[in-house]
Amino acid sequence: MAGDQVRNKQVILRDFVEGFPKESDMYIVTGTVRLAVPEGSTAVLVKNLYLSCDPYMRNCMSNLLGSYIESFKPGSPISGHGVCKVIDSGHPKFKKGDLVWGMTGWEEYSLITAPETLFKIEHTDVPLSYYTGLLGMAGMSAYAGFFKVCSPKKGETVFISAASGAVGQLVGQFAKLTGCYVVGSAGSKEKVDLLKNKFKFDDAFNYKEEPDLNVALKRYFPDGIDIYFQNVGGKMLDEVLLNMKSHGRIAACGMILQYNLEQPEPVYNLTQIIAKQIRMEGFVAFEFYPQYPEYLEMVLPQIREGKIVYVEDIAEGIESGPAARIGLFSGKNVGKQVVAVARE
Amino acid sequence: MAGDQVRNKQVILRDFVEGFPKESDMYIVTGTVRLAVPEGSTAVLVKNLYLSCDPYMRNCMSNLLGSYIESFKPGSPISGHGVCKVIDSGHPKFKKGDLVWGMTGWEEYSLITAPETLFKIEHTDVPLSYYTGLLGMAGMSAYAGFFKVCSPKKGETVFISAASGAVGQLVGQFAKLTGCYVVGSAGSKEKVDLLKNKFKFDDAFNYKEEPDLNVALKRYFPDGIDIYFQNVGGKMLDEVLLNMKSHGRIAACGMILQYNLEQPEPVYNLTQIIAKQIRMEGFVAFEFYPQYPEYLEMVLPQIREGKIVYVEDIAEGIESGPAARIGLFSGKNVGKQVVAVARE
Repeated sequence: MAGDQVRNKQVILRDFVEGFPKESDMYIVTGTVRLAVPEGSTAVLVKNLYLSCDPYMRNCMSNLLGSYIESFKPGSPISGHGVCKVIDSGHPKFKKGDLVWGMTGWEEYSLITAPETLFKIEHTDVPLSYYTGLLGMAGMSAYAGFFKVCSPKKGETVFISAASGAVGQLVGQFAKLTGCYVVGSAGSKEKVDLLKNKFKFDDAFNYKEEPDLNVALKRYFPDGIDIYFQNVGGKMLDEVLLNMKSHGRIAACGMILQYNLEQPEPVYNLTQIIAKQIRMEGFVAFEFYPQYPEYLEMVLPQIREGKIVYVEDIAEGIESGPAARIGLFSGKNVGKQVVAVARE
Repeated sequence: MAGDQVRNKQVILRDFVEGFPKESDMYIVTGTVRLAVPEGSTAVLVKNLYLSCDPYMRNCMSNLLGSYIESFKPGSPISGHGVCKVIDSGHPKFKKGDLVWGMTGWEEYSLITAPETLFKIEHTDVPLSYYTGLLGMAGMSAYAGFFKVCSPKKGETVFISAASGAVGQLVGQFAKLTGCYVVGSAGSKEKVDLLKNKFKFDDAFNYKEEPDLNVALKRYFPDGIDIYFQNVGGKMLDEVLLNMKSHGRIAACGMILQYNLEQPEPVYNLTQIIAKQIRMEGFVAFEFYPQYPEYLEMVLPQIREGKIVYVEDIAEGIESGPAARIGLFSGKNVGKQVVAVARE
């Protein structure tokens, strides 16, 4: 197989996107690829198995200057986190057959020229797709954001927005395991049921059915919120600020509802940060990657014992990529959105 | 003198205030007071020497439920921090003639029924009025906010809004002593000159003369801001967020420009908190009061050696109280606003 010339379907960005992205901002091309790394190169050539749909990728679709993340290139395949199998390697750290996760292209095969950042997958008794989420960036977001940024204590109250998503469902379960009272919000009855029944949140509500979020929050948190795991921004953040307890902590992981707006929704209640001595802290998972082994050591036994569960929404085939990518912003996905390109 | 019945002029709150407070929201009455604590009480009776005008007092003028601070009572004297001389004491910690600072009334004499929170003034080789600011709450705000909340490092860039005020002028000087690059904004040429010439900021600008704050900030911070000492909120915060460096810290001490608005100015750029992994933290000085001795130990030698200077705007007489109080919100004061009720 190595050295063969094979078909390579790719998801290409048409042009930089302004406003709400559409499926047609991307298109599929079918090219070919030689299954070998160039002579003398330290690249690896991988077969992409699972691709991760992540909110931050929205930013890469636009030409954002000064962002911490690189933009995609119009006319080229988009990129993101994925689980891959090494087909050929010029790098001493990787050999043919290795399973890895990390940054790859949205295509069937990718030549990764800087493979140093890839993580080798050592544990395959859990679903491989988990390495796009639970055991990948989303997991590290939940772990770092909850334990490192929020410093939770047993008995504290925790609110999670976008709670059934890739990160939220984990934060909720980590919070329950820590002995916290946990309530999540999501955008459909199905998701709310998941939160309550599958992830064992203490309670959950559909924010779309609440005429007044402030009233809703007071219903679930009559004494206020200690920790807010913030995934959406805007109006929800404003109402949460009114309901935070003194010395509350807000981990700002994503503001998915804001990414597609020409001007993000305003926030009015920041004076609460002073009045209640709140700490709000933004973080990105990759800065915590050095602690990934420590995370695996904690979470793998919990997965094996069924103490942590994970719900994925798997779209089949690279062709389903654009729709899966866009669905994330309307909340179409239930659980972590993954694109399965190939099963092995 | 103790036991005598004497005149007691008081600054009375007319009624709870909505919107921008006016001088006429307060009025002066002249009553009398007996210069003795009631038999068997542990109160102290003090003569008020200097009263402090602080932004947080705006909140006490309204009926704010759930605030961390108590509202004033319409028909009663307003209260605040002050420097006082003990005339009579039923408390073992205090005796006649002691100088103290802490919460007192806006009147010539006050009966303080819970004197445990008063600080005894031990060092009188510095101006007594400093204990309303530099050596009082403003000093602790600057000290705690800059050193404890912002964790500054030599060489970092620091921006301070409302920089010539009670807290800002100190933060700037602390930052210079730490080896930071410091720029401040203020609302008049006179204040900007103070920042540059008296407090030795690296640079300063008049925000009222800047058509585009983003452009102004980029001029002074081409490589971005590490630390923002946030005193105003709203528009300035929004523009600063765009100019923060990665891992920047924002100490939220006050949002004086927001206190009088029916709805505070919105903030749009909070997604920057994630993109740049910013930490924004609200704090109130009184939570750091246990560290006051440590602060004095640091700052007193610096004052004596002239390494820290302090500019006060002293209004004479209790009758000038209402105007001084209101002037704070239009930025009329140059430096820390104090009301001198009596000189000894």
